[in-house]
Amino acid sequence: MRNLAILLSGRGSNFEAIARNVASGQIRDARIAVVISNKPDAGGLETARLLGLTALAISSKGKEREQHDREVVAALREHKVDLICLAGYMRLLSPWFVQQFPQRILNIHPSLLPAFPGLEAQEQAFAYGVKIAGCTVHFVDEELDHGAIVIQKAVPVLDTDNEHSLAERILEQEHIAYSEAINLVLEEKFEVAGRRFVMKSTRH
Amino acid sequence: MRNLAILLSGRGSNFEAIARNVASGQIRDARIAVVISNKPDAGGLETARLLGLTALAISSKGKEREQHDREVVAALREHKVDLICLAGYMRLLSPWFVQQFPQRILNIHPSLLPAFPGLEAQEQAFAYGVKIAGCTVHFVDEELDHGAIVIQKAVPVLDTDNEHSLAERILEQEHIAYSEAINLVLEEKFEVAGRRFVMKSTRH
Repeated sequence: MRNLAILLSGRGSNFEAIARNVASGQIRDARIAVVISNKPDAGGLETARLLGLTALAISSKGKEREQHDREVVAALREHKVDLICLAGYMRLLSPWFVQQFPQRILNIHPSLLPAFPGLEAQEQAFAYGVKIAGCTVHFVDEELDHGAIVIQKAVPVLDTDNEHSLAERILEQEHIAYSEAINLVLEEKFEVAGRRFVMKSTRH
Repeated sequence: MRNLAILLSGRGSNFEAIARNVASGQIRDARIAVVISNKPDAGGLETARLLGLTALAISSKGKEREQHDREVVAALREHKVDLICLAGYMRLLSPWFVQQFPQRILNIHPSLLPAFPGLEAQEQAFAYGVKIAGCTVHFVDEELDHGAIVIQKAVPVLDTDNEHSLAERILEQEHIAYSEAINLVLEEKFEVAGRRFVMKSTRH
């Protein structure tokens, strides 16, 4: 049984999808050991409590990034966390934080990275006029939206789309992609060759 | 019957696919009126001659860009060209050239733009470790690999891929995408809203 941590700052719809998939067994041999928010009023904390999960508010307000990161890392260690899943965590992790958990921190981003990093990726993609949008689950490294890619899902952009309908269809794929990525990483059969996340037996 | 022009600098495998699809009727009501290369020894010119098409070498060697562009534009005018398809044309068109044919110049690029513009896009994507690569047919504007996107095709990157196998699978999709894009543009039922290429009847 592996211990997942969820870091979030808001509602955390990806957290909800992960919780459902842990409960249904689609994420195998894992439990959510702790849900942490830097915002005490994050909706995701309330959801976590309703689900009977350990929910911690570790406020970042008025704290240096490194100080806050130390408090979060201490909580993650206390809960013997194997894999950390960012789910709308609106803080950039310090390099020190990232180095504590090599290949143990996942993030999801609503675009086919490296296209459209940063905020409002779906709106960026829509405005650019791409015909294929999507989402990316990737390891977190010291740079924003940059680490090795575990999974991507493509989402066609329709002529009838607006920013919202596109974002909704991307979100559906996020919910699927994140759980698949968690399973892949927990299986520990991967290697990262350069930037390529590949299964150990299949790489040429 | 609409007149297509092909501009190329090498073998022009996308030119070959377009020629096949014109011959088979998959590209409708169109013919290849002229094939132009800035390199007199381009393989695509030889192919064009074998197919009985008008093949012109307009050498760019030692010429100012604008001078060369004027010669090419004069040839395009002479052949009453409706749509210009770049197929491995290794010259940046001058703004003046682009302005002569608004929404009448297509290019194909072997990535899901705006990711991986420029040369060796497939190798860039492979090295970055994306899980979804692809190709883009877009209108040519004054910036490199930048105009409004007509069609994109996604190509999954496999763990067993290397740069070459990935590039081959992308090329297969290029051959399909380019002809689909030509049909869409020749139908003249599209509009470009901002940067979004959409069918007129369907836009919200």
